Amino acid sequence: VNKVKVALLGLGNVGTGVWKILNTNKEEIRRRSGYDIEIAKILVRDKSKKRNVEVPEELLTDNADEVFNNDEIRIVVELMGGVEPAYEYMMRAIKSKKHLVSANKMVIATKGEELIGAAAEAGVMFYYEASVGGGIPIIHGINESLTANKIEEVVGIINGTTNYILTKMSLEGLSFDTALKGAQEKGFAEADPTSDVEAYDAMYKLAILASLSFGAKINLDSIYREGITKIESVDIAYAKELGYTIKLLAIGKDNDGVLELRVHPAMIPSTHPLANVNNSFNAIFIRGNAIGDLMLYGKGAGDLPTGSAVVGDIISILRNNIDLAPSNDINNQSTTVKYSPMEETKCEYYIRLSVRDLPGTFGEIATILGKNGVSLSSVIQKGKGEEFVPLVFVTHGTKEANLNRSLEEMKNMPAIYKIDNVIRVENL
Amino acid sequence: VNKVKVALLGLGNVGTGVWKILNTNKEEIRRRSGYDIEIAKILVRDKSKKRNVEVPEELLTDNADEVFNNDEIRIVVELMGGVEPAYEYMMRAIKSKKHLVSANKMVIATKGEELIGAAAEAGVMFYYEASVGGGIPIIHGINESLTANKIEEVVGIINGTTNYILTKMSLEGLSFDTALKGAQEKGFAEADPTSDVEAYDAMYKLAILASLSFGAKINLDSIYREGITKIESVDIAYAKELGYTIKLLAIGKDNDGVLELRVHPAMIPSTHPLANVNNSFNAIFIRGNAIGDLMLYGKGAGDLPTGSAVVGDIISILRNNIDLAPSNDINNQSTTVKYSPMEETKCEYYIRLSVRDLPGTFGEIATILGKNGVSLSSVIQKGKGEEFVPLVFVTHGTKEANLNRSLEEMKNMPAIYKIDNVIRVENL
Repeated sequence: VNKVKVALLGLGNVGTGVWKILNTNKEEIRRRSGYDIEIAKILVRDKSKKRNVEVPEELLTDNADEVFNNDEIRIVVELMGGVEPAYEYMMRAIKSKKHLVSANKMVIATKGEELIGAAAEAGVMFYYEASVGGGIPIIHGINESLTANKIEEVVGIINGTTNYILTKMSLEGLSFDTALKGAQEKGFAEADPTSDVEAYDAMYKLAILASLSFGAKINLDSIYREGITKIESVDIAYAKELGYTIKLLAIGKDNDGVLELRVHPAMIPSTHPLANVNNSFNAIFIRGNAIGDLMLYGKGAGDLPTGSAVVGDIISILRNNIDLAPSNDINNQSTTVKYSPMEETKCEYYIRLSVRDLPGTFGEIATILGKNGVSLSSVIQKGKGEEFVPLVFVTHGTKEANLNRSLEEMKNMPAIYKIDNVIRVENL
Repeated sequence: VNKVKVALLGLGNVGTGVWKILNTNKEEIRRRSGYDIEIAKILVRDKSKKRNVEVPEELLTDNADEVFNNDEIRIVVELMGGVEPAYEYMMRAIKSKKHLVSANKMVIATKGEELIGAAAEAGVMFYYEASVGGGIPIIHGINESLTANKIEEVVGIINGTTNYILTKMSLEGLSFDTALKGAQEKGFAEADPTSDVEAYDAMYKLAILASLSFGAKINLDSIYREGITKIESVDIAYAKELGYTIKLLAIGKDNDGVLELRVHPAMIPSTHPLANVNNSFNAIFIRGNAIGDLMLYGKGAGDLPTGSAVVGDIISILRNNIDLAPSNDINNQSTTVKYSPMEETKCEYYIRLSVRDLPGTFGEIATILGKNGVSLSSVIQKGKGEEFVPLVFVTHGTKEANLNRSLEEMKNMPAIYKIDNVIRVENL
């Protein structure tokens, strides 16, 4: 049995998972990799911090040189999160000819091309399965298994926090605020939940998925992003009535070379497999021109599931022979990428209004929509006799520009008190 | 761009898919593999047979020597099915130092160890992703992505034909015979459907999955196998009433080193993701001690999905550098395997009886069950006043031996006209 020394950068949630897995599954890992993996150093900010796992004190260091200047360390595992100093350390690892594993979506979404290029140049391997979908082997799937396909579409539930909140709102009737508070108490949401609920996290992950699926360097600005804070219990109830479930979706499509990239809450048919992905589970749907529809479902977060992907990457490096330069990494990036602007995107829409219960109101609205080329597939009107009554429409597919023009005109209608919400409908 | 010559053995459904994909996705494949893949020879039984795809006549041959004696052919793709002559040809390919890809579950389930051993010895690569689950990258998943896990359980819907039949029975109320006929007309079932409906196909696939998941050479005789021909419409209706869906499941469990392997129809909760895997789709659920629950879902058959897996394997060989011997293939086989006999397996059971509607019948049955340590979780009794009325039980978990003893005793009860059906219930 060979031995290999590995360093961890960071010992938070995922680092703890990696430590536990390397200890618990020593025998399986030895059988599958041919190696005993030894964690030789762990770079942390604060050596005295209380940890959830017992780690020999001498492994902890706050001095990066002890990692990068140690020639015995062959693999560096970056689990710090954020762009800096993670990026600087990753570049140092590559330049020290150490193979690299990372679980850091943010640095890969923003600096992935530089890292992949530097790793190829230095002849080291760089894997980042854990950066999207926790334990789900989605990156391996796209990069290694679906290589025979032209990938046409990727649709995912790739943020566990928002999925937990939406599940609680949907199945237990909680309000957004109560569900968020519950998620924070259970450790599924951060004290500052912005990155999750405003869909930044899902945006970074979509950038990585789209880059690999469509062979393109993705500009983050080209991704339309909308969070879930505007979803109210009443929208969840209407969705149910219409046969839909509300999920935060990350959508990437390759429309004949023009990319459509968006992250937003959407109503999807309750019979679709993605509608039954609940709590903190993640799932990613991929459509390839040979394989057809493929879905991968699993735990998108947590120390052990994410650690499973990280340790799997370490084993991949060992099995690929750490002493050889990697076989030519595939140049997956095409330089000219076109994006379709959100205004050109075709969607169906759920629109919830508060209107004055006057004769002719509905006709007036229908006229505005019709004039802008928007037709309706469902209407729900409830409550009579009160001053303001809710009116809910679902449109047929229409360009976002047409919808926006209609909404602008509706704002000037005296009979409309308020446009309460607009949510896209994806009939997957 | 490099060029590589490949030979196909067989040009049936999957061979046609491979041909189409290599032609349609030439550009993607070149970008991802760095190679142009040329099909140089196709070994067929009958050169004059009408094909679904236009292939230049000079590529077809019925002489195996033209494949194996051609040094320019670097990769052989076996798509013939059956054990012989496929096995002989695969061994010839290996001995000719050609890398090998196969979609043949039967030969891998029965001769996998010999093939893997011979390939390792000869220094050639051997991939067989398409042998289980069509396009679904389940073998890659287990072998490459879940390597950090001790795999505890695999549960799959891995036969598309029976899943199509059960879906039609369940959603459209068809009888087994009508659903089978429909499947045959649509090409989802063979003229002789035995291999599918009696679960031989699923048994072979389970042997492959279990071998990889648990690191064991699987003896096919150790797999309990039961087909779906006994499932009647009335069982489907009772299942629905009880909140279950009937699926043909392949189940493999590693109970502390003792393997439990079985393929049989089972009632599963209608809310479980596997219950919503319909028509000819396949899905495989895996539980690992780090990753938790993971499910892969996709098309388990068809020329293009299966061809996607085959071409993906060819690309894996090209990316691993076809001129190098493969990095030490992992010895996944442990020599001492223990199996738990079916009599020791613990399950819940659905039991449907026709009984005489006499006072005391139910009490007598309950006494027999209780005496054998079988307790009940549900009872449905319908119809009164007729000579024979249906009586349906669901038991709590019990050893199969206990159930069988109870059934034997029940057969002697004058009040029981017939034990109509017994179906396992898996509360996944």
